[in-house]
Amino acid sequence: MKISSADLFMKVRERKPLVHQITNFVTVNDCANATLAIGGSPVMTSSPREVADMVKLANALVLNFGTIDDKALEAMEIAGKTANALDIPVILDPVGVGATSYRTEQVKELLSKVTFQIIRGNASEILSMMGGDTVTRGVDSGELAISNAELAAQAANELNSIIVVSGAKDAVSDGKHTSIIDNGNLLLTNVTGTGCMSTALIGAFSGVTDDFYSAAIAGISTMSISGELAASTLQKDEGTGTFRVRLIDAISRMDKEIWMHEVKLSEKAAN
Amino acid sequence: MKISSADLFMKVRERKPLVHQITNFVTVNDCANATLAIGGSPVMTSSPREVADMVKLANALVLNFGTIDDKALEAMEIAGKTANALDIPVILDPVGVGATSYRTEQVKELLSKVTFQIIRGNASEILSMMGGDTVTRGVDSGELAISNAELAAQAANELNSIIVVSGAKDAVSDGKHTSIIDNGNLLLTNVTGTGCMSTALIGAFSGVTDDFYSAAIAGISTMSISGELAASTLQKDEGTGTFRVRLIDAISRMDKEIWMHEVKLSEKAAN
Amino acid sequence: MKISSADLFMKVRERKPLVHQITNFVTVNDCANATLAIGGSPVMTSSPREVADMVKLANALVLNFGTIDDKALEAMEIAGKTANALDIPVILDPVGVGATSYRTEQVKELLSKVTFQIIRGNASEILSMMGGDTVTRGVDSGELAISNAELAAQAANELNSIIVVSGAKDAVSDGKHTSIIDNGNLLLTNVTGTGCMSTALIGAFSGVTDDFYSAAIAGISTMSISGELAASTLQKDEGTGTFRVRLIDAISRMDKEIWMHEVKLSEKAAN
Repeated sequence: MKISSADLFMKVRERKPLVHQITNFVTVNDCANATLAIGGSPVMTSSPREVADMVKLANALVLNFGTIDDKALEAMEIAGKTANALDIPVILDPVGVGATSYRTEQVKELLSKVTFQIIRGNASEILSMMGGDTVTRGVDSGELAISNAELAAQAANELNSIIVVSGAKDAVSDGKHTSIIDNGNLLLTNVTGTGCMSTALIGAFSGVTDDFYSAAIAGISTMSISGELAASTLQKDEGTGTFRVRLIDAISRMDKEIWMHEVKLSEKAAN
Repeated sequence: MKISSADLFMKVRERKPLVHQITNFVTVNDCANATLAIGGSPVMTSSPREVADMVKLANALVLNFGTIDDKALEAMEIAGKTANALDIPVILDPVGVGATSYRTEQVKELLSKVTFQIIRGNASEILSMMGGDTVTRGVDSGELAISNAELAAQAANELNSIIVVSGAKDAVSDGKHTSIIDNGNLLLTNVTGTGCMSTALIGAFSGVTDDFYSAAIAGISTMSISGELAASTLQKDEGTGTFRVRLIDAISRMDKEIWMHEVKLSEKAAN
Repeated sequence: MKISSADLFMKVRERKPLVHQITNFVTVNDCANATLAIGGSPVMTSSPREVADMVKLANALVLNFGTIDDKALEAMEIAGKTANALDIPVILDPVGVGATSYRTEQVKELLSKVTFQIIRGNASEILSMMGGDTVTRGVDSGELAISNAELAAQAANELNSIIVVSGAKDAVSDGKHTSIIDNGNLLLTNVTGTGCMSTALIGAFSGVTDDFYSAAIAGISTMSISGELAASTLQKDEGTGTFRVRLIDAISRMDKEIWMHEVKLSEKAAN
């Protein structure tokens, strides 16, 4: 597993996968820069008039719910179906799902129409995407009775997708295998868009392999490790502005060697 | 007054108020990061389909006119009325009002439907929001016959809101009391979004107190002081890119002690 | 030529031209900050309800195709026609034209309605804007049989506009005269928005002169030189995040002296 992910770093820089992202207007610039930093090529168009044509050129499609409206959802459906038909991987970031009924309803609608190879969210968002018979439903992510790893495995089986649960420890599961990444830094929660950028990175790695489980691990761990590296450079008078700059620096310098040296990856026994 | 504002810095970091912002697409990322830097939690959704649900979760609502269109205005009206009904403070940033008749008409329309606890703008924008019988009407902010402090007091009485007038000296007035903040740095005018971020900061402070006058002072002075602190760190070869990064650094490091040490706050005698 | 461009740096800081930009939501913040950094004043409104009123106040209008949709195109047509009627220069950035039929059709539609004083794109975008009888049609920019300089000259004659072709060497042509700028750094391709920012800079310079050929040279070379200067400051552990900050620093510090010292400008003999 570790080697499979490690090998993706050189591949993404060699192949420069085109990552089509229909995303939110808050962090769209960060997502484009994170994609470029890891070696991908971002395109962020979201007009229903052209997303079908654009996604045909792409190696991966990322759909992000940050600032959804009816028009963005129309574009997501068109692009998602086109990507499915062409075997282009589709990655979902269900930002804020659970916060309003609109988000929760719309994500379920989209799930019924588009197949997602990977879904990345925090525990609360992943829980909100699941059906009605899970005991943990509605509980805020901080108070979960189950770990991120257990949640990821359960959600992977229910949603039939690779699930990434971000948190103090990140978990990645395909329902059978679950990996835990014990990297990260609290400052990542003090900058907007670190979650969205993680999903963009997963999109870039998914554009150069069919092993989406390894791509998900490579993407989420790149963000967590970069958070650690960025935090370690901060001087006494520096704060979250400088941290954000160094975060992109770290992503842009990430390679197999740094990743192998820094990643704290473990596989959890099957449930 | 000074102590009331000073005490808000710890409160905002403890309570992490949710600040719902329906804002412009130019500086939305900056506003989110400024909100996080001071200790708040930003949410920037603007779809009319969900803003009523979202604002119910919020501790403050910020409406920013930077890139208004009919859809954003619809969302602002829905969110504003919901916030009013729930006693959630609403803060207005009338960006560019006065520049086009569309802006001036729409802000008056919104004023007739939504009650604003605080309005922050530059002198020209505040003037454009006022009625027809003020002698200074239509005069560009640089040539005003009255000071920012006088303008803030006059506008507070006419618009029945706390008014913050940004400028070389910032003024805050509730119509009876007027405070002047003599901090700031000219570089703040060379970076986009410093006004918008000021309003976001005012929103964060308004989410942890009912004393909106002190919240307005805390918010606007945080930006002006952070501008001074950021400018003081610049090296010979650095420019506005680095200044912008250090500005967020300074906001993220702001606390009661730094604020009490740096703020140049005075109260003006009643008109 | 060199002197004509050099003299614009002081002018743009003295006159602070208002540059109205109807642009994309990915790089809009960068474009605003680049405009401020060189001395201009950006306004980014794109509502069809007010663009006619806003452009009347402007010294230049920039239309950018990055994330076009039908509403943005409506605003571009209104603003473009108004600017044409008032002799306000209009600059086009045909981002992604050629990638989808929607973009290619819409740019041709806009070209038939609005006169552009300057068009800036990469070789692929400029080629896609040209008619059906050019031998190089459809060839990707990397494989062109002709140089950027030849392409710029050919396009200038066909499109009846000053053409800027960005690339390893930038070319500017009015159809009769063609200048080549041999500045730049590969890192400029690893940060989103450097092309868009170049066009914003061209817009700022176009707002202070009628010599649009010199304005185009000043704008595109400012970005290429700033890329060189930013790259030269990078330390061992720094990456594209820091590069992007230093890029804005360099733009904000650019003046006639630095530009005259750094620019590698040559004029190509007529075709």
